[in-house]
Amino acid sequence: MTFAFRIDATDGAARAGAIATAHGVVRTPAFMPVGTQGAMKGVHWRDVEASGADIVLGNTYHLMLRPGAERIAALGGLHAFINWPHPILTDSGGFQVMSLSELRKIDDNGVTFRSHLDGAMVALTPERAIEIQNLLGADIVMQLDECIRLPQPRAELERAMRLSLAWAERCKRGFETAAKTDRALFGIVQGGDDGALRAASARTLVDVGFHGYAIGGLAVGEPQAVMLDMIETVVPELPPDRPRYLMGVGTPDDLIEAVQRGIDMFDCVIPTRGGRTARAFTTDGIHNLRNARFADDTGPLDLACDCPACTRHSRAYLHHLFKCAEMLGPMLLTWHNLAYYQRLMREMRAAIVAGRLHDFAAATRAAWHPSEDAA
Amino acid sequence: MTFAFRIDATDGAARAGAIATAHGVVRTPAFMPVGTQGAMKGVHWRDVEASGADIVLGNTYHLMLRPGAERIAALGGLHAFINWPHPILTDSGGFQVMSLSELRKIDDNGVTFRSHLDGAMVALTPERAIEIQNLLGADIVMQLDECIRLPQPRAELERAMRLSLAWAERCKRGFETAAKTDRALFGIVQGGDDGALRAASARTLVDVGFHGYAIGGLAVGEPQAVMLDMIETVVPELPPDRPRYLMGVGTPDDLIEAVQRGIDMFDCVIPTRGGRTARAFTTDGIHNLRNARFADDTGPLDLACDCPACTRHSRAYLHHLFKCAEMLGPMLLTWHNLAYYQRLMREMRAAIVAGRLHDFAAATRAAWHPSEDAA
Repeated sequence: MTFAFRIDATDGAARAGAIATAHGVVRTPAFMPVGTQGAMKGVHWRDVEASGADIVLGNTYHLMLRPGAERIAALGGLHAFINWPHPILTDSGGFQVMSLSELRKIDDNGVTFRSHLDGAMVALTPERAIEIQNLLGADIVMQLDECIRLPQPRAELERAMRLSLAWAERCKRGFETAAKTDRALFGIVQGGDDGALRAASARTLVDVGFHGYAIGGLAVGEPQAVMLDMIETVVPELPPDRPRYLMGVGTPDDLIEAVQRGIDMFDCVIPTRGGRTARAFTTDGIHNLRNARFADDTGPLDLACDCPACTRHSRAYLHHLFKCAEMLGPMLLTWHNLAYYQRLMREMRAAIVAGRLHDFAAATRAAWHPSEDAA
Repeated sequence: MTFAFRIDATDGAARAGAIATAHGVVRTPAFMPVGTQGAMKGVHWRDVEASGADIVLGNTYHLMLRPGAERIAALGGLHAFINWPHPILTDSGGFQVMSLSELRKIDDNGVTFRSHLDGAMVALTPERAIEIQNLLGADIVMQLDECIRLPQPRAELERAMRLSLAWAERCKRGFETAAKTDRALFGIVQGGDDGALRAASARTLVDVGFHGYAIGGLAVGEPQAVMLDMIETVVPELPPDRPRYLMGVGTPDDLIEAVQRGIDMFDCVIPTRGGRTARAFTTDGIHNLRNARFADDTGPLDLACDCPACTRHSRAYLHHLFKCAEMLGPMLLTWHNLAYYQRLMREMRAAIVAGRLHDFAAATRAAWHPSEDAA
């Protein structure tokens, strides 16, 4: 199967559809859990599948440093190495170079950084970012971009946006010279919180031409309203027949808002990180399972959830596990949070098909009562 | 179902049979994984079941301090609290009072200790140890005993042995006045490395009368030969129609040696602790998965094992997970080690039934080649 995107239904700006890849189909809107170093923290791969995920994200930065892209290729590629036979998207490594490496130098050619593992200097160019992702065997490959923190002066936003565009063209050339044709390459819109820069970035990327388009450099601390404003600015510039991916987002509320504005794909560590820190996403809002009010609560974490944390255990037991720092607490809660996120996406897809996304969004938010103990 | 023990086959001193409890049957010889604080570290309860375990051990010391025996009783008992519907044995708390509490005072009445959690002073008497285990709802209840380190002067060994016998009688009275009759109480043979004391302890316990008999105070640092010698001394003193439980043991080799000497039950943290520290028990011996020789090894950890670590992943992937400190490494390897231990028990049961335990033991040991990287 080669890469293809199909829209089955729309509801306002929202779309429900499917991305076909060589490793299977991704139902959209889709949430991609993040398997940073070739593992989903606290969840067996079989259980990631059971949670409803069609696709996962792998981090190029981590995997290129350990165990190394060439080693993974020799071991049969990332799908075989981690034994996840379904679609995989890899990021370009750029974002984590910026956030994890202390010493780094960015110029037109790429970025050079000191590995946080062994201190070795490593170079990442647009061409090498594509080569690594091809070695990993990703179904969806991301261009190398420069992602900067907000706020920034406009000149700095524009410099980084222009550099990302130049790298986008080099990534496309590198991608097209590679042998495999059943993979997809996504460009990344940059431009910070400046609408004009965002629109210019999107238009230029569309001229270059990609299988899909991501919006990067958001969810980096700016207010949600700014993020939504940037989505509304960018989406009209993108071709309707290509998937749109909002990188690194977000909370359940972020996902609902972004889907209503035409976003098809998301990735975020919020559900997995939350699962390790007792932060539970549920039908009635966010709970911190360390709170003493759960100590004698025999009810399920979320009545509407069919994950094992909810069907096999009580809130009292989950509370106990976190109080004891037992691994099983993060294991169960991460599974639950992944199941919650996938259920939210599934219900949004159904609501789009039924033409009732607006009502679904309102009802979902109304069920979240403010929780005084949310971490 | 009330407690019962049946022997189906013998081979030399070894026996294969079954313990019936209110929560189901335990095939013997049995290995009990240790779910210290109401959780098996790194393994979902469903997967503990899948590993082949018929029964697990819960630690009274931990559970009485957190979340508390009365709270667990109010939540429906330990089986419901952790959602393990199969048999549970609880220890008396005595061993961990000795090993985990800094401040403790032992007298004829019991032991008073400072909780390692909040510094509160807590009293544990024989009667309270039974009451706690009844509150937890254990299928097999252990007497309170005093377990001391070796070596010790004979007078000290005898003092602790006599105290344990006095507590055994009080535990029996406390157990018999409790309402539930579908549970079993085991006495614990003490006496250190002194054969005469061990034999005297066993004889007195048998006079008092218990549903089963444990051998405690071994695997505390003494050579394996001493442990086996004590087993050979004690077993002839015990009634053949009652189960025999060697507490806190051991390595695969210990289990084989002890089964050959007539032991029916074991518990030990070696497979679970090993799973968290990259120590793998396999058909061909012990391996440390951190060793660099596994980095490119696409083979399974153990060809004879049907756990997911062996059927779904390579040695290279497991090595990578431990190098990255990913939770999935301990999760997969603990499951594997539990599956290895259960397979060893299953194969010993089959060998006893077939009358070929000696050959099985020799063949099993012959397959263990010395591994230079065993931790």
